[in-house]
This record gives sequence, C-alpha cells and structure tokens, in this order.
Amino acid sequence: MRGLMQDWPLTLPHVLHRAEQLFGHKRIVTATATGETTTTVADLAVRVRRLATALDRLGVPADGRVATFCWNTARHLELYLAAPCTGRVLHTLNIRLFPEQLVYVANHAEDDVVFVDRSLLPLFSSLREQLTTVRHVVVIDDGADAPVPDDVLDYEELLAGVDPYEGRFVIDDENRAAAMCYSSGTTGSPKGVVYSHRSTVLHSLITTTADALALAERDVLLPVVPMFHANAWGLPYGALLAGSSIVFPGPNMTPAAILGMVGRHRVTVTAGVPTIWMGALPLLNQFELSSLRSVICGGSAVPRALSEGFRAAIGLPILHAWGMTETSPVGTVSGARSQFDEADDDARADARARQGWPTPLVELRLVDPDTGEPRAWDDAATGEVQAAGPWCAAGYYGGEGTGQFTPDGWLRTGDVASIDPSGSVQLVDRTKDLVKSGGEWISSVQLENAIMAHPKVAEAAVIGVPHERWSERPLACVVVKPGESLTADEVLEHLVPLVPHWWLPDAVEFIDAVPKTSVGKFSKRTLRERFADYRLPDRQGAGQA
Amino acid sequence: MRGLMQDWPLTLPHVLHRAEQLFGHKRIVTATATGETTTTVADLAVRVRRLATALDRLGVPADGRVATFCWNTARHLELYLAAPCTGRVLHTLNIRLFPEQLVYVANHAEDDVVFVDRSLLPLFSSLREQLTTVRHVVVIDDGADAPVPDDVLDYEELLAGVDPYEGRFVIDDENRAAAMCYSSGTTGSPKGVVYSHRSTVLHSLITTTADALALAERDVLLPVVPMFHANAWGLPYGALLAGSSIVFPGPNMTPAAILGMVGRHRVTVTAGVPTIWMGALPLLNQFELSSLRSVICGGSAVPRALSEGFRAAIGLPILHAWGMTETSPVGTVSGARSQFDEADDDARADARARQGWPTPLVELRLVDPDTGEPRAWDDAATGEVQAAGPWCAAGYYGGEGTGQFTPDGWLRTGDVASIDPSGSVQLVDRTKDLVKSGGEWISSVQLENAIMAHPKVAEAAVIGVPHERWSERPLACVVVKPGESLTADEVLEHLVPLVPHWWLPDAVEFIDAVPKTSVGKFSKRTLRERFADYRLPDRQGAGQA
Repeated sequence: MRGLMQDWPLTLPHVLHRAEQLFGHKRIVTATATGETTTTVADLAVRVRRLATALDRLGVPADGRVATFCWNTARHLELYLAAPCTGRVLHTLNIRLFPEQLVYVANHAEDDVVFVDRSLLPLFSSLREQLTTVRHVVVIDDGADAPVPDDVLDYEELLAGVDPYEGRFVIDDENRAAAMCYSSGTTGSPKGVVYSHRSTVLHSLITTTADALALAERDVLLPVVPMFHANAWGLPYGALLAGSSIVFPGPNMTPAAILGMVGRHRVTVTAGVPTIWMGALPLLNQFELSSLRSVICGGSAVPRALSEGFRAAIGLPILHAWGMTETSPVGTVSGARSQFDEADDDARADARARQGWPTPLVELRLVDPDTGEPRAWDDAATGEVQAAGPWCAAGYYGGEGTGQFTPDGWLRTGDVASIDPSGSVQLVDRTKDLVKSGGEWISSVQLENAIMAHPKVAEAAVIGVPHERWSERPLACVVVKPGESLTADEVLEHLVPLVPHWWLPDAVEFIDAVPKTSVGKFSKRTLRERFADYRLPDRQGAGQA
Repeated sequence: MRGLMQDWPLTLPHVLHRAEQLFGHKRIVTATATGETTTTVADLAVRVRRLATALDRLGVPADGRVATFCWNTARHLELYLAAPCTGRVLHTLNIRLFPEQLVYVANHAEDDVVFVDRSLLPLFSSLREQLTTVRHVVVIDDGADAPVPDDVLDYEELLAGVDPYEGRFVIDDENRAAAMCYSSGTTGSPKGVVYSHRSTVLHSLITTTADALALAERDVLLPVVPMFHANAWGLPYGALLAGSSIVFPGPNMTPAAILGMVGRHRVTVTAGVPTIWMGALPLLNQFELSSLRSVICGGSAVPRALSEGFRAAIGLPILHAWGMTETSPVGTVSGARSQFDEADDDARADARARQGWPTPLVELRLVDPDTGEPRAWDDAATGEVQAAGPWCAAGYYGGEGTGQFTPDGWLRTGDVASIDPSGSVQLVDRTKDLVKSGGEWISSVQLENAIMAHPKVAEAAVIGVPHERWSERPLACVVVKPGESLTADEVLEHLVPLVPHWWLPDAVEFIDAVPKTSVGKFSKRTLRERFADYRLPDRQGAGQA
C-alpha cells in the first residue's frame, strides 16, 4: 500500500523560491579587493533569473557543466542557484589544486563554461589552452585589477543583455545531478562526486537542525570555508533555506579580515578549517566578537587546545564537524550532549574534541578494513568508518574508484576511528596512513601529535616503512623549529611516557619541511615515495613482543 | 545527468535504528492510573522488536492496518514503530469520535487488529460488534481496572511469547504507506489521510529544525496533544530522531497533572491545543516550570491573551503552529523573527499570535477560492490558503474528497487567510464558514471574537443564512453567561465600534450552548442545520451599500 502524499520532489528551485518569497529583505554582504558590497536576497534572485536566461543564450546544454573559479562571493552564490535550478550541473573548481590537477578535473568533468573571478584570471588563463571542452569563459569583476583577454565574456554584460526568467523553475527528478565536486584525495587522480538535488536539499536541511549547525533566520553566516571545498559544507544553501543573512569574505581570507567582518556585521555563525582558527586565536581579544554563537570547524581534526583557547578568549568553544566531499560533507557533529551536564570542564572539552555523533539520516558502522567484520562501539576497538545516507556518495563520475564502496553500497571513508557506546566518533588515522606492525596498528596521527608536543619541534609526520619481521615500522620525519637543535634520541626519550613502547619509531629523520598537498594537508604519499628504499637501523627492543 | 548519491530511502526503520544506536540510555516516562512507569529507549526498542514478531504471529498481512485505541504512552510508541517498520500501516483511532464515526473509520480503513488501552476497553467493546474487518483485539494494561472479555488478547503475553526480530528492518520503497489518520472534518464523513515513510521522516526532521520546533537531544518532550491527533503532530518520531527524552501523560490530561509532570521531569518542550493551555494558565504560578523552553500550541488559533498570559506568568510566550491532518500537520510556525528585534512588546505579541511562516519544504499560495486567481501577500487581501510539500496530502484513502485538491496537485486547506509581505499567515476563517454577503466576505471568526469580548457572553457562533438581496447575511448565536441577561440590541451596540457596519448581524439568537464536534470545535454544520429555514427580520441598513 502506497502513501497518498504529494509527489513533491526535493529540488533546489524550492530553496530559491522560498528565499525569494520569505527572505527577500535579508542582506548579503561581500568583501571585495576595495571594500564591501551589499545586496538583498530579492535583488540576488533577480540576477539568478537573468543568469538562467544567460546560460540558455550561451548555449550551455541541458545538463552542461557550469564551472566556477571563484572566491566566496554573492556572485558565486548566483551561480550556485542558476546552474542547478536550470537543470545544469554546478562544478566548483578548487583554485588551490595544482595546475595539472585543475586541467585534469575540468576536462574530466567536461566543463562547458567557466566563470572566473577577475583576480583569479591570470592563474586561470595559464591553464586555458589545455582545457578541451570549455566553450566560454566569463569574468566576474571582483574589484581586482587584472588584464582580461579579448575572448573572455563579461558577467555583468551577460546579465544586462537578457530578461530574467519568469515563474517557477521546475526539476522533475530529484535525483538529477545538481553539482559536482572533485575529491582532492591524497592518492591517485581527483575523483568526481556528483550531488543530486535530493542530496543537496536534505543536506541543507540538516544544517538547520538544532543539534547539527542550527542555522536559523536570525543568524548571520560568514562561511570562511571556500565555496570550492565541498560547496562550503552546504552552508550557503542552508542559509538560504533558513533565511539567514550571509557575509562573504571574498578574496581576503586573513584571520584579521575575517574577525573584522564578524564584528562589523554582527556575525553569529562562522565556519572554516583549523588553520584559519589557529591564525585567529591570538587575535581574538582585539575584536568585538560578542555576536558569535557558533564557530564551526572541520576539514581535519580540531586540536583540543584550539577549541579551549577559543573558550578561554570568547567563552565559546569550537563546534567540530566531520565529513568529506563524499559525505556532502556533514557526517557527524560534536559538542557536549546532556550526558555531560554533570561532567567537569575537562571531560566536556574531551567530548567536544571528538568528531561527535552522526546527524539524522546518516548511519555509520565500524569495520575491520581487511575482513569487513564489525567492530564494537566500546571506545577501544578501532576500525574503518563506513557511512550510509542520502547525501553519501554511491560512486564517482566516470565509474572510477569503485573500491571505495562496499558491495552493499556503503562508503568506505578511509578514516580509522573508535566509537564510544553513545555513538561518538574518535578519529585515529587514515587507513592508508596506519603503520601495520606485526598485525597491529600504530596510529601515525597520534605519534605525530606526541612528537609535535615537543617544544623544539615545528612539524612531524610519521610513515610506515617496510620491515622484515614486523612488516612495517614507523619512521618519524621531524622538522626542528628555526634556531633549535634536536637529536633522534631526544625525540625518542620525549615519546617514552607518551605512547606504548612498541610504537616508538625505529628511526627519526630530520627534514626541512613536511610536504603538503594542494589543500594544505600533510602529503604522506610524497614522504613515502622519498623514503621508499629506506633501510631501518636494527634497533633492539623496538618492535612489539 | 543523474547524481551519484546513495539510493537511501527515507523510512522509519532509520528512526528506530538511530534511536537504538545513539539514544538507548534516554528515558521514557509514562503516567498511569496509579503512578508512573519509566523505561529506556533501549528497552523500548527490544519490545518493538518483539511486537514486530508478534504481528507476524497474529497473521497481520504485509500491509495490514494496525489500529490503536490508546492514550499517550510508551506502549503506544511501540506500536508507532513496530507497525510501519514491518511494512504495516499504523492507524490511530481517535477515541473522541462519535461511536458511529469510529465504526465508519475502522471499517473504511479495513483495520485488521486493534490495540486498546484497558481503560478504554469498555468504550471500545460497545463498538466491536459493528467492526467488520477486525480479526484481533489486544488489550494493553494501563493500570485501569476494567473487565477484559475472553476473546481479547493480552499485550504482555503476546510480547512474552515471541523472540525479538533481529537485525535491520528494511522498507525498500519510501513511498510505502506508514500510517493513516482520519481527518475528523466538520462536513461529510471522516476522510483517511495516508502518510508515507518519506513524508513521515521528512516531517519528523522538520520538528528538529531550529526555526520550527527545534527538538534536540537535551530536550525532554511532553506531548499533551493526543497520539491519535495527526500522530501527536509528529513529535514522538521527531523526539526519537533527535534523541529527546519523552514524558507521556497517559490518561490523565488535566492541566494540574501535566504541569506537575513538567516540574517533576524537567520537561523542556510541551505541546497541546489551546484548551489545555487555557486550563493551565491560572495554575502556572503553582508549579515549578523553570525547565520549559517551549510551549507549543496548535489545532486552532491561539488567543493573543493566552500567549501573553504565559509570558507574564513564566516569561515564555506560546509558540503557535498551524496545520491540519492533511499537512502531517506542521505547515507554519510562528514566533518573532529578527525583523521584530527593534519592535515593542505589543508588536511582537501580534506577530506571535499569527500563524507564522511556512517551514522549509512547505510552499503556500493564497487564491480566490472561487476563481483560483492568486491574491497578493500584502496583509490585506484574503484568500484560501493552498499548500504543497512532501508531507501534504495528495488525496484521501479510497479516492474520496477529490475536490479538496487542485488540478495541479495542491491541497485546498479550507482556511481563509491574509499573508503579509514577509510570508506570515494570518487566519481569517474557514472557507465554508465565511458569510458571503453581496459578493464580499464577512469573517464569522472575527465576529464571534468581537461578540465573545462582551463580558456577559459565554460563547458565540456566527453562521450565514440565506438572504434574498445579499445572498447571505450573518446570524449570531449567543450563549449568555449563567445568571446574566442580555438583549439582541445590546449585542449589536457592543459590536458597532468593533466591526464594519455592514458586518453587523441581521439577527441575534440566544441559545443554551454552541454545539461541538467530536474534537471540541464549534459545529457550525449543526447550527446551520438547526437554522436552515431561518427567516431574517427585515432590518434597515444592515447590508452593505
């Protein structure tokens, strides 16, 4: 027996129509190279409707890929709406990818048209010749002074030359593609995640739920996380659905600029990766930040000290969320639930530093990555986190990377974690970064954190290198702070009270810097290549019994 | 181009599995005739799994209707879960329907099995002979002392005699029926609204969004609204999704009993119809209510004075929500949005007394009920509210009542309203209760409120009666307070400064009581029948020019 409810598809036109109808008066501010511009949702919606007509005029196919190469701006938000509301597919290019990756990604996605912020045009122009499917490039004036080639179209002229699309946008099939993001990944080529209208609407809705991010009409959102990183974690769509005002930071992503905007615009919610909040921490007492109710952090684990630093400075700990491009990205959200109401500050801080609980509609399981056997949720057993839910990927564009999905359709996240009995996730490592020593795992992340706690260490990365008896053993690659000196024995002595004895690295190498990926994460792949033929010294007693 | 996200259906098993996995420790309290019982979500889930097996054992068909005749209790919640999670259809019988309506509804829905609270067994037994499809009756011990006929099964014996269903419940099609509720309606027979898994999950999710009801893990919910009224407004499922604790009032729905539970269990959110809060208002200062963060009210318009009375007594105005069985029921939620931040208390109170803004995923339009032409959202023009969204009905069970749906699939709510430019709804009347005088509308509700403001009036209902020249003219049916006396002229004089002159009723009839429907609303149908042949006096100057 079927239900008798309306067959009402979950599509992005609803988000646009709702914003037009209910929130036309709300402000959208964008920082530019020279100042700030302010518009309203009503004015933005008219521009979206012009852009819809303009995409037709450009001959962008019915499901053509509309690529963006842009900062976080109101113009970028126009593209976020016009592309999917007309049935096309938004493709946010990550401006920080290496050039060869950018070319690969744009060609792989078969981008038809690319919209580029003027300040990014020089970078983009250097790649353009290698783009095989792009028919049009459109430049958006962001206040920057950069030369514009003759064959590049002007965004404002494009919009001025057409009439706004009238009436309701209609997407019949909620499973139609709405947007694609390439997962930058640390192995192999980037892979394309294709969000549907349904997944995007449901994920946007989750950002408005009380225990997730609780976006509300009275919020003023400042998304620091780039709109080319998993669509700014879905926050722009969530804000439109809730009716929040939005403040876009534009190209100036320095901590001081961001904190200044928080004070000036009474921002209530802001979100970014740990790096930005680490930069902001020493500046917090120089700004008026009393409007803030939530500082969201994701992208990688939030150091407990960072969150506690925020709490000490402004009375507000960081809200940690976990996910990845393949999970749209919100998968879990941390915080301190009612079970910690009687706990002391320390226990609450520990709870907040975990990755937290899955949101509604997301299910997680913990499995042995080799056998697929389930692991207990006892806060001790570790395993790979696998995820299911309506905004979790089922595959990649072009059918690549099938190994990342289980036969029963769950996503292998590649993250190793333990889960406590209440369902709170604690990340341990990436599966591929674990050091597999004698059938047991050593967490490279925990070793690195322990080494980086040494006052003379600037950075440290730990990788597994081949070992005859133990299969793999840890090698510590350490960067010493400028002006300091340190020996391998000093590093090991420092570690003795901090980690199990059999975790002690078999060798310590001092390097100039830990190599980084295009998005600023440690590139252990590069380190592993560099130390592929490394021969460990024959250290007595280092391995486990 | 299709998205590449998991084909993960929105079904109630997710709500159960989530509650089992994450919220097993949360408390569920139920008041009984003799005290209170407390269980946990984990224990409740095991009983749900037993019940699932028991339904198989009883031979309830794959999509058989599992009817309930119960108060708000943890046992009722078990049925809320076991029926839909096994693919069957929950049918909550409204114990307050007239007997002939109950018989009609149970037979129309083809109920296969009925679960009855022991305290309600005498009432139910009087109908049983007329039920043509019911094969089993199961009694649930609620502490009451009532005789149990021989052929009635015992709920606890049923559960004790089977093993719990193991593993995941699977519903492949999210559009499968999950539950049905009959709309009691004031015209014609009750009509069956059939909720799907999809509509129920989405509606549950909306109860957890920040600007709707914001159900959260740290909430303690006390649903006063009966579980047989539009499934207690979806709150039990919302609470399970969010992980809130739940306190069920059982059969004792007196204001004092409810306020006592609020204090005893630190209830944060409670919800009920205006009648219950009117009864509670004079008692507020006798109870410890500091834990409350939200008092939700729906079912009919909330008098501004009631909400302000709560604000004066406990610092918390009432949160008004609007909807109907056909909208699952949450359609709009009121409150005071950021546009009222600078407004005075009066303006905020006015805003809160409106029906408010549509929730995400619900779209409204305002149309002329005769021509279907759109009406402006200018807070002045009135029209019928039509609704669309994934939890709005597309039809009734058995194909009845097709006139309540537009050719393009929207629900005609039967409510007449104005909508302000920000999208906030202000109800005026039911379409069928409007008095159509000379092509213009007179709001019976506004006339009634004006008459009831007279200190000697207990109740008043206004209906339209036929008129040669004006088509219809208002007749006021007035109940005078005990011990008072009042004349028709006094009523009309009282109205002169309160309503437009041409709204003044052409006649005033004094009656003993306003007839009520089974759910306690004014039954204007009964009044219209009683005064069908009424001959209006030939009053000079009463009609409009």
